[in-house]
Amino acid sequence: MKIFPVTIALLVLFLFGHMVARAQDPLPSWNDGPAKQAIVDFVRTTTESGGTKFVPTEERIATFDQDGTLWVEHPIYSQLVYCLDRVQVLAKEKPVLRSIEPFKTVLSGDLEAVAKLALPELEKIVAVTLTGMSTDQFQAEVKNWLATARHPRWKRPYTELTYQPMQEVLKYFRANGYKTYIVTGGGQDFVRVYSEEVYGIPPEQIVGSVGATKYGYDTDGKPILTKEPKLLLNDDHAGKPEGIHLMIGRRPVAAFGNSIGDRQMLEYTKAGHGTRLAMLVLHDDSAREYAYGPAQELPNSKVGTFPQSLYDEAKKDGWFVISMKNDWKVIFPLELGK
Amino acid sequence: MKIFPVTIALLVLFLFGHMVARAQDPLPSWNDGPAKQAIVDFVRTTTESGGTKFVPTEERIATFDQDGTLWVEHPIYSQLVYCLDRVQVLAKEKPVLRSIEPFKTVLSGDLEAVAKLALPELEKIVAVTLTGMSTDQFQAEVKNWLATARHPRWKRPYTELTYQPMQEVLKYFRANGYKTYIVTGGGQDFVRVYSEEVYGIPPEQIVGSVGATKYGYDTDGKPILTKEPKLLLNDDHAGKPEGIHLMIGRRPVAAFGNSIGDRQMLEYTKAGHGTRLAMLVLHDDSAREYAYGPAQELPNSKVGTFPQSLYDEAKKDGWFVISMKNDWKVIFPLELGK
Repeated sequence: MKIFPVTIALLVLFLFGHMVARAQDPLPSWNDGPAKQAIVDFVRTTTESGGTKFVPTEERIATFDQDGTLWVEHPIYSQLVYCLDRVQVLAKEKPVLRSIEPFKTVLSGDLEAVAKLALPELEKIVAVTLTGMSTDQFQAEVKNWLATARHPRWKRPYTELTYQPMQEVLKYFRANGYKTYIVTGGGQDFVRVYSEEVYGIPPEQIVGSVGATKYGYDTDGKPILTKEPKLLLNDDHAGKPEGIHLMIGRRPVAAFGNSIGDRQMLEYTKAGHGTRLAMLVLHDDSAREYAYGPAQELPNSKVGTFPQSLYDEAKKDGWFVISMKNDWKVIFPLELGK
Repeated sequence: MKIFPVTIALLVLFLFGHMVARAQDPLPSWNDGPAKQAIVDFVRTTTESGGTKFVPTEERIATFDQDGTLWVEHPIYSQLVYCLDRVQVLAKEKPVLRSIEPFKTVLSGDLEAVAKLALPELEKIVAVTLTGMSTDQFQAEVKNWLATARHPRWKRPYTELTYQPMQEVLKYFRANGYKTYIVTGGGQDFVRVYSEEVYGIPPEQIVGSVGATKYGYDTDGKPILTKEPKLLLNDDHAGKPEGIHLMIGRRPVAAFGNSIGDRQMLEYTKAGHGTRLAMLVLHDDSAREYAYGPAQELPNSKVGTFPQSLYDEAKKDGWFVISMKNDWKVIFPLELGK
């Protein structure tokens, strides 16, 4: 008798779970095709207890590039827009910036000239806008900026321009015991500000380009961490597997990217033992988003981020290419509300 | 009718959970006293839904120093023993080391001379023994070493010399939705090798002193990460809150340490909003372990790790001091089997 209610409890839970699983398509924004099939097959076979491709829960690590993989990166990375906007704010506090390059160019509003700035000049902008304040101050500034900044094409907050099909992939992986990580060339502290709200990914699961901080005390004697202009990790290209080792210490089982900067992360992921999934989002939808894949011609800085060589390596090494045009029913979450 | 089995299911689960909670003391190896009470009160009030001290699950971060807080650090840090043992192995491969300092001193077996080596000499030993190989090779070497190395006093593997009362704290915190992290001055990659098995803490929750890696390819063209002799973070003293920001990106709600190297981590933790817990393990039990607290005199390198000034700051800032002698019924898990 004693065991009876427990049996019912387990039976109910089992049947309920089974029904839900059958009734719901975990990827409703995806068209049927090889990309969707690859994701579903991968998740099923790596989580099927007793199967030859089973991956223990603690090893279920999936990494996702952000810009161009989880949200729009065109025409400029949102973090770069943040830095340029921030120069405007700082120039009010320090008018001397108006006469010093590269700030003078940024303040001129001449976007073509800004686009031509060389790396050392961009580094100066980054140093001034992303360092020299406490981690708490920086977080507050980014939060404020996100609330008002709008994408030039959709006139929406950047945080609304995530890809709905990829949001579904994140949830689907997590529902199957995977820890989802963002591995981005963008700033680790920048992405951490909104990642939990926007992607359901907590700050401790953000791997990004990151500078040192310095521990000290404010005027009230309270401990603070100040962001220093000293780069610890440039989390792009070879820096991605290096960042993954630094922050996670395990090789991912699945990795998603969209550009040449994700190449090493995908190689590193695929080179592990057992079943691995590597996928590339191909931007081939100029109508609903942008087109800057191998066969495309886009007259801007994004040309070359997905060269033919990357496409070739994908085919050779068994990575899957996701066509935004053919594989995705919708691009953005807001289209669902229409 | 339809709702009936679900109701039973929930009732069973609720009653069962309630009974277990009442029947089990989560900290059976702790004597009743202010330290145990502080831990139980903290966990209860921060997880009591609707309470004024409630902490949301995603913010439940607890950090633990390792050496001297979770396991024995005396007479030498186990990782330093690893490095010294490793010099012996390397000398067989490269006999030239036998005539070069500081390796000559290490190979002489004169422990007093080894103890007198200066920091630049120790750095040479660290560089030779902890870098220059792939991350996979390093992991395999540490695993092999752990299987055979023994503590000089207890003749047991280091991994058996964890503190049973602290193992209970780790489990108690996790059972209440806390993510437990190790924040150690030791090597991040070193601790990651055994942390999951020994403490139930996965590699991605180890914050430690860490060097850069370099992505490349082996002779078969397979991607590998090589450990470089370039320090990214010295995770001790001020480096601990800096490491916490780097790796977690949130301020801990609770932190445990045992020495002056943990001071900044405890300050940083306590300076957060709301309820915070900061605790120091005091080594005052020379019979069952070691005594090197403020009032102790130990003729070795551990003198000064818990100076009177740390004791004073603890009292002033409301940190709790755990007396190994008075608060702990047992020290090691193996005593439980006696």
